[in-house]
Amino acid sequence: MADTAQEMVGLSVRMLVERKPEIAEEVFRLEDRVNHLEVEIEEAVLRLLALRQPIAGDLRLLTSILKITSDLERVADQAVNISQTGQYLLKEPELKPLIDIPQMARLSQKMIREALDAFVRNDSKLADTICRADDEVDRLRDQIFRELLTYMMENPKNVTRALDLILIARNLERVADHATNIAEDVIFIAEGKNVKHHFGERSDAPAA
Amino acid sequence: MADTAQEMVGLSVRMLVERKPEIAEEVFRLEDRVNHLEVEIEEAVLRLLALRQPIAGDLRLLTSILKITSDLERVADQAVNISQTGQYLLKEPELKPLIDIPQMARLSQKMIREALDAFVRNDSKLADTICRADDEVDRLRDQIFRELLTYMMENPKNVTRALDLILIARNLERVADHATNIAEDVIFIAEGKNVKHHFGERSDAPAA
Repeated sequence: MADTAQEMVGLSVRMLVERKPEIAEEVFRLEDRVNHLEVEIEEAVLRLLALRQPIAGDLRLLTSILKITSDLERVADQAVNISQTGQYLLKEPELKPLIDIPQMARLSQKMIREALDAFVRNDSKLADTICRADDEVDRLRDQIFRELLTYMMENPKNVTRALDLILIARNLERVADHATNIAEDVIFIAEGKNVKHHFGERSDAPAA
Repeated sequence: MADTAQEMVGLSVRMLVERKPEIAEEVFRLEDRVNHLEVEIEEAVLRLLALRQPIAGDLRLLTSILKITSDLERVADQAVNISQTGQYLLKEPELKPLIDIPQMARLSQKMIREALDAFVRNDSKLADTICRADDEVDRLRDQIFRELLTYMMENPKNVTRALDLILIARNLERVADHATNIAEDVIFIAEGKNVKHHFGERSDAPAA
């Protein structure tokens, strides 16, 4: 599910860079797969909770899986949003070559992959580095916003396209936020403590 | 938790309408309360899962509560985002009187309140009407986008403020999305079926 969701993010931005609107169809097709996987995983977790009545670590693991699948499903939603915005955007001539947006996409895809690696290996240290990578994503987003605002102010003809790119940067920011949520769940599973709202000793964790 | 989260949404938009930046402090204060409540509720659910080992309906109820609290926490996040954007916005003169944004806020607050009513009363019929109200929120958002794009194109001086208002409309759209998620959970609890991805007979449900 994580592989497919992060692949969708990559495809949705490749669609913009290579100006190939037909890639959107592939993204929509993969969304179906992600949605089916979410329902399947949820049903498996509920079955395990009912039949095995797990406690302590196993219980934390299963309830966290419900949250992780919900985050991954929302990552897929962001990719779908990007593709939909992209379909409008590609009807217009190119505003500017895209540099920072693909960079932001690569970074947030990497965060999703690493969050799942951390989950599979129960590695709370790796999870910790993911929470920190979110700052770099936010820095890129600020840079993208500043540049696109300049385009908007220079020429009214740029406004619609620049706004579309700003909304796409927002979507990518949310992908990174979901990776951070997953990383926080991994720390919760591994250490049995809730880092989400800075209640533990880790005062450096980002807000959810 | 739901009361506080929807109150935060109302306050964050009142801050914009009445041009009172000090209301942001109240929103940030309430966010703390929401975060504490989320952690408390999660711990209570985990305790119940471990000690009582519930099955069937009770199990569905408890795992859905974990999802609902996560949605409510994100509603609070949206209100915080609106207040933060508002703090920049209120440093500039008013771009236009706000009509549609407060309307969108009222509608999405109502959706949150009703989603929780539906949850408490286990009322899947009410939950169903909430899923439908989301269309009205989307219609308002489109209207707001169109109007603000016109402002942006008319005068470069309007660009930053109009963009801030667009981002705020996006935040409100997400509040309504979270209410819809909760309503879908209520239907799942009540009827034991997953309506999220149109797998049931309800083909009129919105996508998550």
